[in-house]
Amino acid sequence: MTKTMKAVIKPEQAPGMVLAEVPIPQIGPQDALIKVRAASICGTDLHIYKWDEWARKRIHPPLVVGHEFCGHVIAIGRDVTEVKERDFVSAESHIICGKCPQCRTGNGHICQNTRIIGVDRDGCWAEYIAMPAYNLWLNPPDMSPEIASMLENFGNAVHTAFATDLTAKKVLITGCGPVGLMTVAVAKAAGARAIYATDISPYRLRLARQMGATHALNVAEVDVVETIRHDTDGEGVDVLLEMSGASSAFEQGFKALRDGGSAALLGLAPGMIGFDINSAIIFKGATVHGIVGRELWGTWFRMRGLLNSKAVDLTPLVTHRFTLEQWEDAVQIMNSGASGKVVMFVDG
Amino acid sequence: MTKTMKAVIKPEQAPGMVLAEVPIPQIGPQDALIKVRAASICGTDLHIYKWDEWARKRIHPPLVVGHEFCGHVIAIGRDVTEVKERDFVSAESHIICGKCPQCRTGNGHICQNTRIIGVDRDGCWAEYIAMPAYNLWLNPPDMSPEIASMLENFGNAVHTAFATDLTAKKVLITGCGPVGLMTVAVAKAAGARAIYATDISPYRLRLARQMGATHALNVAEVDVVETIRHDTDGEGVDVLLEMSGASSAFEQGFKALRDGGSAALLGLAPGMIGFDINSAIIFKGATVHGIVGRELWGTWFRMRGLLNSKAVDLTPLVTHRFTLEQWEDAVQIMNSGASGKVVMFVDG
Amino acid sequence: MTKTMKAVIKPEQAPGMVLAEVPIPQIGPQDALIKVRAASICGTDLHIYKWDEWARKRIHPPLVVGHEFCGHVIAIGRDVTEVKERDFVSAESHIICGKCPQCRTGNGHICQNTRIIGVDRDGCWAEYIAMPAYNLWLNPPDMSPEIASMLENFGNAVHTAFATDLTAKKVLITGCGPVGLMTVAVAKAAGARAIYATDISPYRLRLARQMGATHALNVAEVDVVETIRHDTDGEGVDVLLEMSGASSAFEQGFKALRDGGSAALLGLAPGMIGFDINSAIIFKGATVHGIVGRELWGTWFRMRGLLNSKAVDLTPLVTHRFTLEQWEDAVQIMNSGASGKVVMFVDG
Amino acid sequence: MTKTMKAVIKPEQAPGMVLAEVPIPQIGPQDALIKVRAASICGTDLHIYKWDEWARKRIHPPLVVGHEFCGHVIAIGRDVTEVKERDFVSAESHIICGKCPQCRTGNGHICQNTRIIGVDRDGCWAEYIAMPAYNLWLNPPDMSPEIASMLENFGNAVHTAFATDLTAKKVLITGCGPVGLMTVAVAKAAGARAIYATDISPYRLRLARQMGATHALNVAEVDVVETIRHDTDGEGVDVLLEMSGASSAFEQGFKALRDGGSAALLGLAPGMIGFDINSAIIFKGATVHGIVGRELWGTWFRMRGLLNSKAVDLTPLVTHRFTLEQWEDAVQIMNSGASGKVVMFVDG
Repeated sequence: MTKTMKAVIKPEQAPGMVLAEVPIPQIGPQDALIKVRAASICGTDLHIYKWDEWARKRIHPPLVVGHEFCGHVIAIGRDVTEVKERDFVSAESHIICGKCPQCRTGNGHICQNTRIIGVDRDGCWAEYIAMPAYNLWLNPPDMSPEIASMLENFGNAVHTAFATDLTAKKVLITGCGPVGLMTVAVAKAAGARAIYATDISPYRLRLARQMGATHALNVAEVDVVETIRHDTDGEGVDVLLEMSGASSAFEQGFKALRDGGSAALLGLAPGMIGFDINSAIIFKGATVHGIVGRELWGTWFRMRGLLNSKAVDLTPLVTHRFTLEQWEDAVQIMNSGASGKVVMFVDG
Repeated sequence: MTKTMKAVIKPEQAPGMVLAEVPIPQIGPQDALIKVRAASICGTDLHIYKWDEWARKRIHPPLVVGHEFCGHVIAIGRDVTEVKERDFVSAESHIICGKCPQCRTGNGHICQNTRIIGVDRDGCWAEYIAMPAYNLWLNPPDMSPEIASMLENFGNAVHTAFATDLTAKKVLITGCGPVGLMTVAVAKAAGARAIYATDISPYRLRLARQMGATHALNVAEVDVVETIRHDTDGEGVDVLLEMSGASSAFEQGFKALRDGGSAALLGLAPGMIGFDINSAIIFKGATVHGIVGRELWGTWFRMRGLLNSKAVDLTPLVTHRFTLEQWEDAVQIMNSGASGKVVMFVDG
Repeated sequence: MTKTMKAVIKPEQAPGMVLAEVPIPQIGPQDALIKVRAASICGTDLHIYKWDEWARKRIHPPLVVGHEFCGHVIAIGRDVTEVKERDFVSAESHIICGKCPQCRTGNGHICQNTRIIGVDRDGCWAEYIAMPAYNLWLNPPDMSPEIASMLENFGNAVHTAFATDLTAKKVLITGCGPVGLMTVAVAKAAGARAIYATDISPYRLRLARQMGATHALNVAEVDVVETIRHDTDGEGVDVLLEMSGASSAFEQGFKALRDGGSAALLGLAPGMIGFDINSAIIFKGATVHGIVGRELWGTWFRMRGLLNSKAVDLTPLVTHRFTLEQWEDAVQIMNSGASGKVVMFVDG
Repeated sequence: MTKTMKAVIKPEQAPGMVLAEVPIPQIGPQDALIKVRAASICGTDLHIYKWDEWARKRIHPPLVVGHEFCGHVIAIGRDVTEVKERDFVSAESHIICGKCPQCRTGNGHICQNTRIIGVDRDGCWAEYIAMPAYNLWLNPPDMSPEIASMLENFGNAVHTAFATDLTAKKVLITGCGPVGLMTVAVAKAAGARAIYATDISPYRLRLARQMGATHALNVAEVDVVETIRHDTDGEGVDVLLEMSGASSAFEQGFKALRDGGSAALLGLAPGMIGFDINSAIIFKGATVHGIVGRELWGTWFRMRGLLNSKAVDLTPLVTHRFTLEQWEDAVQIMNSGASGKVVMFVDG
């Protein structure tokens, strides 16, 4: 093993990233070293690339970016029992403290001391990554690397979808980016009665139909609330799953929600928004769940169940494949909106 | 309309039933008169036919039997607003008081004063039946009468299945009578990861596979607990849905349930049973739900969702069709165990 | 019985009310006529008195106002079985349809066709009121009339408090009007670990302490968020119960809520508000419940339990007593903010 | 520090225990060494003393016994951050693996690899004990040692009580041993409407009244089911908390439970019992929770809340105090049934 490796890094406090040669990370007694096989791109990576306000506050360069990946264990620390060399793994990107009240009550996904790879410490757009063994998830050896690289993000979809109960229900999913599209697939697998998916991109609405949406609505063309009200005898949907963060989606989503319905919110709003909390939540007797990360490890077990039984097939969502050296093309296509999931393979 | 009608009745306190000519029922101000289109057979009807201990205590002949049916409204009482003439309806067979604490807290399915048609008052194996309009459920006009006649029983399956959460879970369904088979279909629709179904009838196990069981196990041939333990890396299933009432099924079912799992029990045991409550429930930290009837009307809305979206198709379960005049053949085939659901059509 | 009665009415589309002589209401077959013993005043009555925007849209004069009361049944309709003459009753003010999907699934409190007494039909600030028997709640004969008159409003407090679980939890109750004060009493009875109550009125904060608040904070004087954070080792409260509708209370309440906490919202905001939904709900992984009315009849059974066991004593909240003829004094004192609950007695 | 210490041990596979001089335990990098201040006695200790069937199968002498204690940290391992020297701690007695599916989903209390101190490894009836730092719970420095020694057992009560919702409910607690009595106190703190407690010991029934039981019933003298039915207008209790393990308590408890009620079961039955699962669970539409151990650490946070707010005061339950040298007297009094909680103090 050479002493350095290729990695995409944020070198300094400015827009952009670069491919660089950096030291291969060291592992501690409870860590494993993983040779990365594939890494995928998430909206967060775009924020870091563009160096927006959130990124400027949160990111401390230099930093190896990326938090969605899979690979093979090639070395383990002294105390590691969870995995062994050659295991094929994905990883929970949130490294939690295990000691705060949230961690101590089974709510590690809202740990008070979370550190995220590719955000708060070095990430996975690299040939190698060191991870606490606790954070690794064992995959079947024959799982497709592109699917395995997406599990972290699939977990956002699964966590959101299972905040409420979808079987036999009418569901509205606002936002058909990759995580919204995966949520469509979960709703389909869970036996939702109707799946309304909204976006402004015809490309993504096509993918939504392919993943199981019964109604893919372009918000630039149709009145979503009116359409859903008409279609549901004036009642509205049972469940809103908000995956876009768009102000208009919060407004339309809650308007389309029936009295007594439930909402789960994953997408982040662009700061403070005007909100009619009376009509959206109170008069409706609605229940609203804020969603962050993935439940450790309830969400991962759910994912395994959905994928092993083939109730969910994520393959159609992988629309673009690149090598790590082509990272900039990968970022651009992700940024265009005309993509599903974009995966980079690390050769060797 | 003539003043009498054909009906299958229990004429006296003894085994058997007879086809007889009886008065067409009168309706009160809140009732509707329904011309029966199809009626299906349930295990309860067999108990009444055989005049077993339960029947001897509960049934007061003469009585028109039968509680699963569909038909068309042909007259309504003065105060009825829920339905109108010519509506195609199924019916909740439990007539509840609406005034006891259970009814007043949304738990009408355990009403303290329930009266069941075909058990406590005249039933539906007849040309006509009078029902409180409140108990009627509006079907799409083009729904198949044989499916519409089964909704009451399908409701038992749906109520049991939704006592817990099945999506991405490993589920054991003990007993593949009609209601067990319908439960298999619901588990499939809800995206269960694995569906183990058990019975002693190869006929019914074939149907179980057809309805979506991933593993149909003949308890006369294989060790169910051993098979499931082996198949689940020693863990067991996440959920037990007990639909048989067999003592051995309670024992095997709880043994196959994983620690922290959930069970929903619909089948009635043959009286007092020997039960290892420590191992079955306490040490496991299990949660157990007793199930009776159907939630009014949450279960019915679920059913509508599952059927309208075609997530569940009950058609393969209708294995035998008869006329009302052939009621005795229908009862015999139901009794043989070599049937799915048996439906009788009322001509005219 | 004379043919007319005294009643406080909204005579026309303008501010104010008047005491008038109006016909005693007729009862239908499912109704009861109640001789009112006591009626209490709610914020809604003030809106109607002042003729604000909400009132102008909703109220159609002439109308007998008032929706909180108790009294004795003096006549019942032909079909009534729930109550009999001389019964001492309170009433659920929401008259529901019993037929919409919400009513049919045990969620009558969000009935799509609710009509409220004193708002959508004649109310209880009168010598007599006609009510559907279904809406009446039987009180012990020796219950204090002033307490019995408050049950409807107490139900708002109980419904809000039981949306989450308070025992051994740290709770923030924003707003110490009568319903907020009753919520303090419920939190105390439920064994809350700490009860933070906020208001701007020293009068009401004194009452809050009397009802069981461990910390009564004047938002005009202290930084509520800072105080709670300091007091809880930086964590925040487990539960927020919002009873004020003030924009600042929504903001402070959610800021003081811990990650993974729950909120129940009863107070109505003054229209659209600026809301940081990311920080308030999403990043926190919070669960938020919109509350309206009272669960029929789960909330009422809870109330009975709390009052019968003396776990809650509402007596200290009744700060002012008037006769119906003194209605205008009663309204003024309620409007002043320097009151707990204001009750009017109907003589005779 | 000397190299040996006093400890009560099970020296061999036979009834009895002895006070012996044994080596002070060593600590690993993630452990802490605690100087024991007080230890209390539990039914499990009696099983080990008597060497019953369960003990013969589970216990491998020689073993230091005891699993309920408090004390001060006097040394910590290299990697310990949770506690520091001089901290006053209690301990979760179940040492869990952290890696099985149950541990990975926030259900460590049903860990597949649990090892219990005083059962599967050396316990706390000794001058010192080594514990994983993860298992320690920090107490206020001024907490009474006798209360602090009981927290593990109090956790059983709290875990059982919070399996359902007690506020404003009618509750039956079968069995008034120490854990049953603590459950009475929790039900009282949670605002239960009525608390029925049963036992055969007048001594313990007196304590039950003292802890808050509204009805303390001697099953040797009164018909519990009849009494409760009469007292509740024929309905029964909302909640059953079974703490005795007596066959008759299971039978009476479920008979006294209302339709739609909930039960939580902690007491272990004496092996296989005859059980009418139809009447007990199915026809009732009951929900039953098996309880084992304490939720890590949800139950502990609940305990802290109940004790800090003084909603629960366990002091009256400590009826007997001994030194460690008097262990045999302590065991005998515990065995007599004429005691609440028995605490042994370790001098020095």
